[in-house]
Amino acid sequence: MNIAVTPPALPEEPNVDLALKDAREQVMQETGTIPTGERAGSRKVYVAGELYPDIRVPFREVAVHPSANEPPVTIYDSSGPYTDPTVTIDIKRGLPLVKSSWQLDRGDIAPVENPREVKPEDNGHASGKNLAPRFDTSHHKVFKGVEGRPVTQYEYAKAGIITPEMEYVAIRENLRREQTAPCIRDGEDFGASIPDFVTPEFVRQEIARGRAIIPHNINHPEVEPMIIGRNFLVKINANIGNSAVLSSVDDEVDKLVWATRWGADNVMDLSTGRNIHNIRDWIIRNSSVPIGTVPIYQALEKVNGVAEDLTWEVYRDTLIEQAEQGVDYFTIHAGVRLPFVPMTAKRVTGIVSRGGSIMAKWCLSHHRESFLYEHFEDICDIMRAYDVSFSLGDGLRPGSIADANDEAQFAELRTLGELTKVAWAKGCQVMIEGPGHVPMHKIKANMDEQLKHCHEAPFYTLGPLTTDIAPGYDHITSAIGAAMIGWFGTAMLCYVTPKEHLGLPDRQDVKDGVITYKIAAHAADLAKGHPAARLHDDALSRARFEFRWEDQFNLGLDPETARKYHDATLPKEAHKTAHFCSMCGPKFCSMKISQDIRRDAQAQNDAGGSLLDAEAGMAEMSAKFRAGGGVVEVKV
Amino acid sequence: MNIAVTPPALPEEPNVDLALKDAREQVMQETGTIPTGERAGSRKVYVAGELYPDIRVPFREVAVHPSANEPPVTIYDSSGPYTDPTVTIDIKRGLPLVKSSWQLDRGDIAPVENPREVKPEDNGHASGKNLAPRFDTSHHKVFKGVEGRPVTQYEYAKAGIITPEMEYVAIRENLRREQTAPCIRDGEDFGASIPDFVTPEFVRQEIARGRAIIPHNINHPEVEPMIIGRNFLVKINANIGNSAVLSSVDDEVDKLVWATRWGADNVMDLSTGRNIHNIRDWIIRNSSVPIGTVPIYQALEKVNGVAEDLTWEVYRDTLIEQAEQGVDYFTIHAGVRLPFVPMTAKRVTGIVSRGGSIMAKWCLSHHRESFLYEHFEDICDIMRAYDVSFSLGDGLRPGSIADANDEAQFAELRTLGELTKVAWAKGCQVMIEGPGHVPMHKIKANMDEQLKHCHEAPFYTLGPLTTDIAPGYDHITSAIGAAMIGWFGTAMLCYVTPKEHLGLPDRQDVKDGVITYKIAAHAADLAKGHPAARLHDDALSRARFEFRWEDQFNLGLDPETARKYHDATLPKEAHKTAHFCSMCGPKFCSMKISQDIRRDAQAQNDAGGSLLDAEAGMAEMSAKFRAGGGVVEVKV
Repeated sequence: MNIAVTPPALPEEPNVDLALKDAREQVMQETGTIPTGERAGSRKVYVAGELYPDIRVPFREVAVHPSANEPPVTIYDSSGPYTDPTVTIDIKRGLPLVKSSWQLDRGDIAPVENPREVKPEDNGHASGKNLAPRFDTSHHKVFKGVEGRPVTQYEYAKAGIITPEMEYVAIRENLRREQTAPCIRDGEDFGASIPDFVTPEFVRQEIARGRAIIPHNINHPEVEPMIIGRNFLVKINANIGNSAVLSSVDDEVDKLVWATRWGADNVMDLSTGRNIHNIRDWIIRNSSVPIGTVPIYQALEKVNGVAEDLTWEVYRDTLIEQAEQGVDYFTIHAGVRLPFVPMTAKRVTGIVSRGGSIMAKWCLSHHRESFLYEHFEDICDIMRAYDVSFSLGDGLRPGSIADANDEAQFAELRTLGELTKVAWAKGCQVMIEGPGHVPMHKIKANMDEQLKHCHEAPFYTLGPLTTDIAPGYDHITSAIGAAMIGWFGTAMLCYVTPKEHLGLPDRQDVKDGVITYKIAAHAADLAKGHPAARLHDDALSRARFEFRWEDQFNLGLDPETARKYHDATLPKEAHKTAHFCSMCGPKFCSMKISQDIRRDAQAQNDAGGSLLDAEAGMAEMSAKFRAGGGVVEVKV
Repeated sequence: MNIAVTPPALPEEPNVDLALKDAREQVMQETGTIPTGERAGSRKVYVAGELYPDIRVPFREVAVHPSANEPPVTIYDSSGPYTDPTVTIDIKRGLPLVKSSWQLDRGDIAPVENPREVKPEDNGHASGKNLAPRFDTSHHKVFKGVEGRPVTQYEYAKAGIITPEMEYVAIRENLRREQTAPCIRDGEDFGASIPDFVTPEFVRQEIARGRAIIPHNINHPEVEPMIIGRNFLVKINANIGNSAVLSSVDDEVDKLVWATRWGADNVMDLSTGRNIHNIRDWIIRNSSVPIGTVPIYQALEKVNGVAEDLTWEVYRDTLIEQAEQGVDYFTIHAGVRLPFVPMTAKRVTGIVSRGGSIMAKWCLSHHRESFLYEHFEDICDIMRAYDVSFSLGDGLRPGSIADANDEAQFAELRTLGELTKVAWAKGCQVMIEGPGHVPMHKIKANMDEQLKHCHEAPFYTLGPLTTDIAPGYDHITSAIGAAMIGWFGTAMLCYVTPKEHLGLPDRQDVKDGVITYKIAAHAADLAKGHPAARLHDDALSRARFEFRWEDQFNLGLDPETARKYHDATLPKEAHKTAHFCSMCGPKFCSMKISQDIRRDAQAQNDAGGSLLDAEAGMAEMSAKFRAGGGVVEVKV
């Protein structure tokens, strides 16, 4: 832990009153405590690009005990510079930039001459000590695509251009397997096209086909590029954000760093209270993962929470505000069309998406089609100019088992498919949001319908929760559905925390949600037969079998918790090399007995016996056994 | 909480020395604190039998707020007399008897004249203060089947006799739906035969076909009968038990009561240290759920932990010892045959079942076929005489993703199928144990192979864990697999706690494991389309949509935790009726907006509008929409 967390100095800013300074000081102090330093037993390593040698792709390397005589295990690392001991973290200044100037050099993007000014309504008219401190954005130059030039990853891919981002994610997806391991293919991928190794050209093709996206606003140069697509590792998203009830800047930055530390690949800022703009600056400038938002939330705040008062102009202004800040993807509920709203009337739980219910209310009160639907091409034009990706929202997703897979849900899904084509034609990257609450037997239909109607655009689902009866445990009810739908082809899983339906997640909830969803995503990768997946399981299982306790902890998703559980009953250091644990004690340890058997057999074998005279001997014995049906004498 | 927990008086027992008395006093004091009283928001109710009017089948009834105008929700209740406020709990005396004397009256069973005496080796030669206090078994009369008479539920079923146990479980499975609710059939059951309502005759048929069991030793009259079978509600088992490292009587009784309070349908006592016999008495006499054991554990203790020294005679004596105590089912690893052991040699994690590794070691060191396999008919004869059910153990289950579905595992499974037929021919009830660690895409094959080779005998699986990379979270890695295999047809799911692979579960782990597995089992019931399943989800979802917070908590699997999470941010009593929560705050509550929409529409409707002029209007609008592809004007 040799990382220096710079104590943030207060910037000069004459228009900040004393109360605000106090607020900022407090924020600084508290965000100064965000978790940094390498993960337990891990080392941060980087791999350079070949096409683009400046690229430095991060990995987390877990070394195992020398007795294992194994290479270290390389793990996908979404934690950003916070776990790099050579980087000085300064929350006030934000993260170092990752993106190079290649787009600027090509003349594809240019600085915006008159970026949008922050307006009082952007922060819900918060003022004085109610106003969250502003992030010093003086170093943040705002860019926009140049008319007539490509700017989105989709456009480059279509034009046959491999971008640095594409090479970056190609390296990232391979987990350095080229160097260390054979390619294990064992799974059922339901028609996916997962390659043995990912090449930059494969990435380009997948993006050009619309089957994958690299969410990466040109105004968020702090992002370490990542890819979302069915033929890549399954990703997870963590939601953070304040609400009108709970609110603080420091909590949200802390949750962001905390979530990515444990493995969140994306973070959505779902803030809905005041200070939305300012909090978002802090989050984006300190985030190495793509940030998503739901712009309608802020737009609604700007019209004082009255859905009927929403207008295209307010919404449009909000899109530009957030695009200039650097939001990487927007959830747009353009599929909540007027004719679909009555389809929800007989539901047990009506409309449960916030954005969906806002738009439904707007449509009904104006007797008009959704302005998001009507202005969809305008929205595309704005988003394309910054390469903000679409996350087409499922405003009519089911909120209970009873409502799963109903008419309203699938009507919206088909509309999202139409809109996908419109967005692609405009050059935008697109993914599709999915449910929700769905019993296990109805999950596959969601994936099948999505693939069919949305033209293989990446699917991004919330859970789904497989039962409604466990408030307080919906990370688990939903992990079941998430793992399954990930297996079936969903590209990113939005986490659900234990607080779902009950309150806003705190730090522990964020961690529980992230770890639970890392499990679901990895279980899905294994089942799909992703060739990078099983190496991790096998390394951990070997450590387990060989009683390398430290390796077992360090290779796990949460070394601290595993160690704590082990030490609860066997705290001594000597127990870390003990050939048993407290579950069974020494006499009953099956792994120990198994090893004894193997050792004895090996000894006999060395002396001319046959038990472990492996394949041949085993096959022979098996054959004898099957033929005779009786007892086979084994010479040991 | 008007239940009186009688302070247990010390029994007269002249051969108890002072140290032992102290130990017992401590035990008494601590077991006196076991959780009793009704569950939050719940009421214990009983339903009488028709064929056997003395039967009193327990349920937990959750009343909802009068504003809902709904009947109370009836929930399966495995918690026994501990949640009945009219019962006085006295751990020292054990539970009141449930079983009537019908078998005795028929002359099918008779008292054993010379029951086996407890021997010093039964408790691992523990003495003095190391010896756990003995339960006063003077009231426990030991019975055995009478030669030539039926004694097992299987034999009665085959003979066409509907026993009181069969009617009991039939009533139990229906959850009083006859009185309150329509029959919702919606699911994919993969060829199961789940009836709309369970009749005693259906139970008999299922048991006679070997597709279900009622594990119920005639010497465990405290049991509230329950059924395990693919065409019934999915059940869960909780493992408790001490080890050589950790040991105490009070902890185990507490865990037993705690596990059943949260919903464990069965409990296995997997103790492996000293005092196995005495601890088991305490557990059985205080258990209203069937208790399972793995007799080889105690047999091994009797030969001082040296697997090679195990003999049929020691094992046989242990079976009788435990059968007379009242163990309801035995895990018997008779499928670990000598020829299969070498098949595990190349595995990543060898043999991970304790029983399996003990038998493997025995087989190899003696160069002999397993004595469990060779004496299988003798084992049947013993178990039949007390109606101890078989749980045919999967000693060669995979202990890692790498080893799933391998040759060793399936060779053993086929052997278990052979043995099932032998056991049935002897009149025994049988279920089959299953894995283990299995990635999602290999789970269904486990169920299919089991159904095929084991003749539809109930499957009872541990998890399976769907990835190896999350020590500390294996309740979750396994809940994913458990829910899926339950859906596919597994009848009982053995829980996995967060401490799996790391240590013995404590109280919190037991609760986490049970709740997690209740989720998995219920998700499976929903997906199978069990007609009793969705009523619970729907009732909770309606409560959620109508902001009946107290109902939402009380209908959940864990009201205390749900309430705590909610109150973390909105603690005031007024918030329990608030039409929002802290997740979104009042302005953004989709459910509130949804209700507003509905209310507005209803008002318009009452005034002659058409939005909620439901089916007709909606169909019309949908049709117009589909035909026109454009904007449809909706009259609200």
